[in-house]
Amino acid sequence: MDLMRAEIICIGTELLLGTIENTNASYMSRKLAEIGIDVYHQVTVGDNHARLDEAIRQAIGRADIIITSGGLGPTVDDITTETLAGLIGRKLVLDERILNDVKKYFKLRKVKFPKEAARQAYVPEGVNPSTLRHSSGSNTELLSKYSTSLRVDGELCRTIKWVKNDIGTAPGLIVEYNGRIIICLPGPPREITPMFAKAIIPYLKKKAGGGWVIKCRAIKTTGLAESHVNGMVKDLLKLKPPVTVGIYAKLGQVELKIMSKAKSDKTAGAAIAKIDNSIRARLKDWIFGSDDETLEGAVGKILVKNKKTIAVAESCTGGLVSNRLTNVSGSSKYFTIGIAAYSNEVKVNILGVSPKVLQKYGAVSRQVASEMACGTRLLAGTDIGIGITGIAGPTGGTRSKPVGLVYAALAIDKKQIVKEFRFKGSREEIKFQASQAALDMIRRNVKG
Amino acid sequence: MDLMRAEIICIGTELLLGTIENTNASYMSRKLAEIGIDVYHQVTVGDNHARLDEAIRQAIGRADIIITSGGLGPTVDDITTETLAGLIGRKLVLDERILNDVKKYFKLRKVKFPKEAARQAYVPEGVNPSTLRHSSGSNTELLSKYSTSLRVDGELCRTIKWVKNDIGTAPGLIVEYNGRIIICLPGPPREITPMFAKAIIPYLKKKAGGGWVIKCRAIKTTGLAESHVNGMVKDLLKLKPPVTVGIYAKLGQVELKIMSKAKSDKTAGAAIAKIDNSIRARLKDWIFGSDDETLEGAVGKILVKNKKTIAVAESCTGGLVSNRLTNVSGSSKYFTIGIAAYSNEVKVNILGVSPKVLQKYGAVSRQVASEMACGTRLLAGTDIGIGITGIAGPTGGTRSKPVGLVYAALAIDKKQIVKEFRFKGSREEIKFQASQAALDMIRRNVKG
Repeated sequence: MDLMRAEIICIGTELLLGTIENTNASYMSRKLAEIGIDVYHQVTVGDNHARLDEAIRQAIGRADIIITSGGLGPTVDDITTETLAGLIGRKLVLDERILNDVKKYFKLRKVKFPKEAARQAYVPEGVNPSTLRHSSGSNTELLSKYSTSLRVDGELCRTIKWVKNDIGTAPGLIVEYNGRIIICLPGPPREITPMFAKAIIPYLKKKAGGGWVIKCRAIKTTGLAESHVNGMVKDLLKLKPPVTVGIYAKLGQVELKIMSKAKSDKTAGAAIAKIDNSIRARLKDWIFGSDDETLEGAVGKILVKNKKTIAVAESCTGGLVSNRLTNVSGSSKYFTIGIAAYSNEVKVNILGVSPKVLQKYGAVSRQVASEMACGTRLLAGTDIGIGITGIAGPTGGTRSKPVGLVYAALAIDKKQIVKEFRFKGSREEIKFQASQAALDMIRRNVKG
Repeated sequence: MDLMRAEIICIGTELLLGTIENTNASYMSRKLAEIGIDVYHQVTVGDNHARLDEAIRQAIGRADIIITSGGLGPTVDDITTETLAGLIGRKLVLDERILNDVKKYFKLRKVKFPKEAARQAYVPEGVNPSTLRHSSGSNTELLSKYSTSLRVDGELCRTIKWVKNDIGTAPGLIVEYNGRIIICLPGPPREITPMFAKAIIPYLKKKAGGGWVIKCRAIKTTGLAESHVNGMVKDLLKLKPPVTVGIYAKLGQVELKIMSKAKSDKTAGAAIAKIDNSIRARLKDWIFGSDDETLEGAVGKILVKNKKTIAVAESCTGGLVSNRLTNVSGSSKYFTIGIAAYSNEVKVNILGVSPKVLQKYGAVSRQVASEMACGTRLLAGTDIGIGITGIAGPTGGTRSKPVGLVYAALAIDKKQIVKEFRFKGSREEIKFQASQAALDMIRRNVKG
């Protein structure tokens, strides 16, 4: 069997009300991509029998693997098992073995068994002790012994397996139906995550057969607009599978994602490496890192490698650059002090900015940024000093100094570099972009 | 018109790969719920013409309002406008006015215009200067002047409006088509959020008319575990519509959400107020705010109200408390200086921590936290001083001082308060929880 196309159906009125984020859809999609299964649709419906039924039927029509999340709880709102039973033509009956598992759950937690919870032990009629052998290896241990072969209307529904839930009370369910696999899992992320990783992925890996390998690499740039990056890799963005390149713009950062699908790890890896080289040759030092690397992490590596220490003086970013630098484990090796200097008094008395310069050019100026960088370096006795001043908004802008105007300065050796930026966005967005620009100045200007 | 049913279609292969979270779907759903528009389906498809076309057609068959997000960018992957034009039977043509807007965007940022960006100025043929009057009030100012009446195949397609994008380059699009409203918006959350709140919601509010009103209120607490809050409001969590209460645990914060649905604003509001009172009577000062209020915002209000100024000295939080305090607009009124003091030299030389105390108790101790709070207050001449020291991890912990051990101190008037915390989680999670605890100490201890 080569089941390569999946559809995810998330069930829950709270998702449609937007009161919770749908992290299950992205989590499962990511995991499926890793084993080479494509997700073509993610659909969210409420706790409504008719709409869930319609969604599952539509998914059966266009996908090989249908995975539902949610609607397996103890309340009358939870309608997934019922809907599925109807769809495969069976009534729901109480399964004593599952009921015992549910009761055990409460006993273990020293909580009285709430009789509503029994609802979770109702399963499609005809579920019998396993006649299907399943792997007992650690990977599939969550596939419980309650597997069965079940014949409905000319062998349509072949197998039902129950998937144990180690965290909550609602077990999951796998039905092999008419050449499709339907998997029903609970909604809470902390329940579905281990069930999916430990039981469903190994099960699907086996079913999907022959096994494709998908490998991804993200290449991260800063300092260029999305359309600029786009223009530099236009041909690569048009690549068709098995190797594709996508472009993703974030605040102050543009990422290229290479994805490669192959029959072996080696082939997939080689294809990635080839495109990676091509991208690096074009984007050169606009690239600061790849995959999970952060800009602050890249800066940290450079500082460690070059044995440089750093001190930061920030006005408009208010501590964000220091915070980001210290998010990196081991940053105490190079980070000495960060001063969020909001008032002019602090700029003068602690950082040693000249009152004359402040008065002549204003707090938001090249000159003050530069004096802040030099002042903090002197104060802390570090190799590098950073100074940032600007207007984060939303108020405080003028015609000549609008909201978003930021000066970032870097003092290193005998050099002082100052850059002017004009950012757009909310206060927090302007702060972030300013921190991104300042970190990038460090990355670009520190050399051994 | 009484348009009450919406469907959200999110477009982007990266959503199907799970590499980014679909926050747009929940954001828009939440906003629609607030004005009484029900979302029955959220659908996600990739950057694929056929599947997007199919999804829009299906949505037209079952919803009154169809909102798409994504696929409006400058790259060949971006296929929403093209798909929509095909669906309403029009070719795409370059609109010079939109092109000018896009060019202005780059000019303002002093960036050369990349010719790929012109793609975003292609619109369905027949879009002419407005013949449709639209409100010029502040709420709808983002609905640009590029509105038009357009006749396709017997008046099917009545109106197209362009929605200005103040953050990015891709404008949005509203089509009134065959009794349905189709709205196409860009994908980046920071672009869609203001467009949706400022242009789309007021537009839909008018269109949807009469209808139900849904009101929500979030009540935010910090300092209590989820299970504690749960135990205190257990009966409320069981309420059935039209008024319900949900509980949501975030890092260092537990929120209760009241939702009320009624035929009038007044009835919905009264029901919210009743439950709100009941929750406040139980959770008292564990509550720091409601709805969009943040803890740093609540702290800011208290400082302004009591005319107090503050200085912060942080070790393990590395600037996070300063950064959060300065995320609040107007924080320059009370925030003077934040010092991220990583090294012992800085603690001694700048904050005036006694070397003897440092040696005797260690940098992570009640005594050092307290001396940091007093030292920074003295240095800055503020009313309040905050000192935070701890072990953010993942390394650096010992048996007696494990990762997650944090001391936070507050110096105010003649008082010094020091608290010990033991947090769990990643480096960033520990930093965040420590900042949350420190901000909460300010909130609880500043009085006029």
